Amino acid sequence: MSRFFKKTEPDEIVKKLVVKTVMERSLICDGDRILIAVSGGKDSSVLAWALSAVRPALKISYDLSALHISTDFCACCKKSVLCGRLAEWEIPFNDLFVPVTGRLKEGRKMNCYWCSTQRRTELLKYAVENGFNKIALGHHLDDIIETFFMNLCSCGTISAMPILLKYRKYPVSLIRPLALLEEKQIIACAARQNILKAACTCPYGQNSKRGDFRRRIADFTGASPDSGEIKRRILNALGEGRIDYLTEK
Amino acid sequence: MSRFFKKTEPDEIVKKLVVKTVMERSLICDGDRILIAVSGGKDSSVLAWALSAVRPALKISYDLSALHISTDFCACCKKSVLCGRLAEWEIPFNDLFVPVTGRLKEGRKMNCYWCSTQRRTELLKYAVENGFNKIALGHHLDDIIETFFMNLCSCGTISAMPILLKYRKYPVSLIRPLALLEEKQIIACAARQNILKAACTCPYGQNSKRGDFRRRIADFTGASPDSGEIKRRILNALGEGRIDYLTEK
Repeated sequence: MSRFFKKTEPDEIVKKLVVKTVMERSLICDGDRILIAVSGGKDSSVLAWALSAVRPALKISYDLSALHISTDFCACCKKSVLCGRLAEWEIPFNDLFVPVTGRLKEGRKMNCYWCSTQRRTELLKYAVENGFNKIALGHHLDDIIETFFMNLCSCGTISAMPILLKYRKYPVSLIRPLALLEEKQIIACAARQNILKAACTCPYGQNSKRGDFRRRIADFTGASPDSGEIKRRILNALGEGRIDYLTEK
Repeated sequence: MSRFFKKTEPDEIVKKLVVKTVMERSLICDGDRILIAVSGGKDSSVLAWALSAVRPALKISYDLSALHISTDFCACCKKSVLCGRLAEWEIPFNDLFVPVTGRLKEGRKMNCYWCSTQRRTELLKYAVENGFNKIALGHHLDDIIETFFMNLCSCGTISAMPILLKYRKYPVSLIRPLALLEEKQIIACAARQNILKAACTCPYGQNSKRGDFRRRIADFTGASPDSGEIKRRILNALGEGRIDYLTEK
């Protein structure tokens, strides 16, 4: 079959959109030391694979390293599988233990916000102490759109997840190279790269509020023949930061 | 029955929310000469009634006048009924004929955008020539939210309808005093004030794209026990114009 008739492979789509995001948003510069936060899930695993795979296309010289944060409640992590895959992609791996549940004050219950704050703080600390100037996170287009709608409807603010966030207090930036990718594109890539087998999921499961929004957004954008197009349009709107025609002028 | 147990009447809700919008957004000042754009529909009729009814509560001195723009395609307008109701509310009424269809270039079809642009231009011209410094429009919360979502999903911009719009080129401002009201609240008020009987609708019917968005937004916000609360939260978000946590920082 001619290559012109071949459907683009899922891993090629991921590589293409990661290169596009990195170039358009200037996410990576020559000499960057990038720490990839790997949870063991499909998103951050695909991120690690992609950042390694796009090196030839980007023609930028950068170092990659991965950090997994272990907690006192995650028992299912297939760390050795993850570790093996990262070695294949020539990404050094480190593991940091954070007793998230152990740090809870008496009477307080575990929740996603508390856990992510604890892990983010330790991640930042580790990056600064070990000379990394970029932290790469595996959030994708659906995560960003969900956060946007949750903030809009629950908090009454127009805010989302930055694709590039420069911290004022620390010599570190957050980057989200998967920002243009829909979750289904990441899943397809993970399946093809045999990554899904190494993925673990949080035992506390899906945050029910986020899950509820996910379903409602799918209904909202799903009426279009290309829901991905709508999502990318929303992302562009967020990037523009135009406030000209809001409710006051 | 004690008044404390009585459910708030629909016209009281409209008055309360119009006063709130006018006060919070400083829509009306002492000495304002306000031209109300009345299409003959329920929204602008309720707007005219409300701006007349809230005078005692606002304690501001302002003039009201109404302008209806007649077109060469609207045959159903019950102008005499509308005229009678405006007289009851002590609002002088004028009618302006704009040949919207007649102005179409050959081969061009009628559409909502063309019609509204023609009418808006004539409205502005009339206001300036006749010494009005404010133009009041009957757009409500659902109109604003729909416009926001249509712009977000179709154009990729974060923009909506301003509640207060100061024109740079003209000595006139647009105000939308019904911005906090849901359409269902306006319909309930119109029914109680016997306004519905005087309302006419555009023979070209609902814009199908807007109608589609209306249904999808109802599904999206309807999952909440109070969808009005979500809509008002979105309106607040638009008013804040915060661009801190968008996709770039």
